[in-house]
Amino acid sequence: MNKYAVIVAGGSGTRMGSNLPKQFMLLKDKPVVYYAIKTFLEAYGDLRVILVLPASHIDRGHQLINTYFDKSRIRITAGGDTRFHSVKNGLALIEEESVIFVHDGVRCLLSTDLVHRCYEMAFAKGSAIPVIPSKDSVRLLKEESSEPVDRNKVMLVQTPQTFRSKILLPAFQTDYKDTFTDEATVVESYGIKVSLVKGEERNIKITGPEDLLIAEKMLDEV
Amino acid sequence: MNKYAVIVAGGSGTRMGSNLPKQFMLLKDKPVVYYAIKTFLEAYGDLRVILVLPASHIDRGHQLINTYFDKSRIRITAGGDTRFHSVKNGLALIEEESVIFVHDGVRCLLSTDLVHRCYEMAFAKGSAIPVIPSKDSVRLLKEESSEPVDRNKVMLVQTPQTFRSKILLPAFQTDYKDTFTDEATVVESYGIKVSLVKGEERNIKITGPEDLLIAEKMLDEV
Repeated sequence: MNKYAVIVAGGSGTRMGSNLPKQFMLLKDKPVVYYAIKTFLEAYGDLRVILVLPASHIDRGHQLINTYFDKSRIRITAGGDTRFHSVKNGLALIEEESVIFVHDGVRCLLSTDLVHRCYEMAFAKGSAIPVIPSKDSVRLLKEESSEPVDRNKVMLVQTPQTFRSKILLPAFQTDYKDTFTDEATVVESYGIKVSLVKGEERNIKITGPEDLLIAEKMLDEV
Repeated sequence: MNKYAVIVAGGSGTRMGSNLPKQFMLLKDKPVVYYAIKTFLEAYGDLRVILVLPASHIDRGHQLINTYFDKSRIRITAGGDTRFHSVKNGLALIEEESVIFVHDGVRCLLSTDLVHRCYEMAFAKGSAIPVIPSKDSVRLLKEESSEPVDRNKVMLVQTPQTFRSKILLPAFQTDYKDTFTDEATVVESYGIKVSLVKGEERNIKITGPEDLLIAEKMLDEV
């Protein structure tokens, strides 16, 4: 089966207090997004990467690929206004039947095990959404108050959200809705239930300076 | 106003792959629970700590206190079967009107700022439950499927859950229910709404070996 990883690093976020988007901040001596690309390429020798970047950073992306990777396995395309639009731009490059991983470029610590787990389930069931249980109690905000939720029922959603192309590609042939916060919600809106798979504690999202420190520590320990 | 911090370290959990409970694992060269005690004692000069430990670890607790702290400010009592019972044992030592912080002993990285913020709100409104937004998308498990929740409405609950004694002490005069997963749920079951306050990203729970590494890194950076 063909395999594509659409790695979305479309954000130009400045929450790190820097003009450099998070996916290009240095983790040890390499850009954050480098690690995610590397893991996918290592997971399957026949997997190809589609890297979705802000238009202003495409040159930087080519430089990264030329320095570290086999260029023939990676294509770059420009992101859109939302995650939905960025993913859609990436998917537009896929025509053949395949299993497609959609991954946050700032989740740089995923393992090849997780990639394999997602592939197996998506191949068998059509989709695989990695989740982990919440370690904290959870409350839902209401109009003027909040209420507890049974923690055993709460799952934190990670990526790579993985699908067979015959589900994901038609699901994205729709107009954007506010409720499209990830690919699972797009596919559900298309009328298909998704399957959950066990995620990883270490598969964190780099959103602030502390996360970079944590990620560095974790890389040291591998 | 009198101030008490009930620090619950009643667990004898072995998830760390060790016989030593998590609260006594070494973080740098000191037990995890040391850091929480230290922060509370530093936050207010007139605050007293009630440390709730498994009966089998009370000697170890006294040793910790004798080594590092002013003994006159800390008492130790034995925990119970659940968090509810452990907290109840701690609260049994409080008779005077006060603001009471109930804190997870394995959340060792809280700041004195957070302690102050919780105190101010609990003093003014009766309660203060520290929460942070979820960085991940969230799904709720249903019988045979799962459904997305609006992430903006999801709050991850931390400690110290902080209350005026006149609310917390009577609320705990009840029998245990399965739904008592934290102090907020006990107080709500008593018929009182709780107030939320801004928690801290760094106020993590040490539940696995990776968390110890993260905590160590964070302590280095302070």
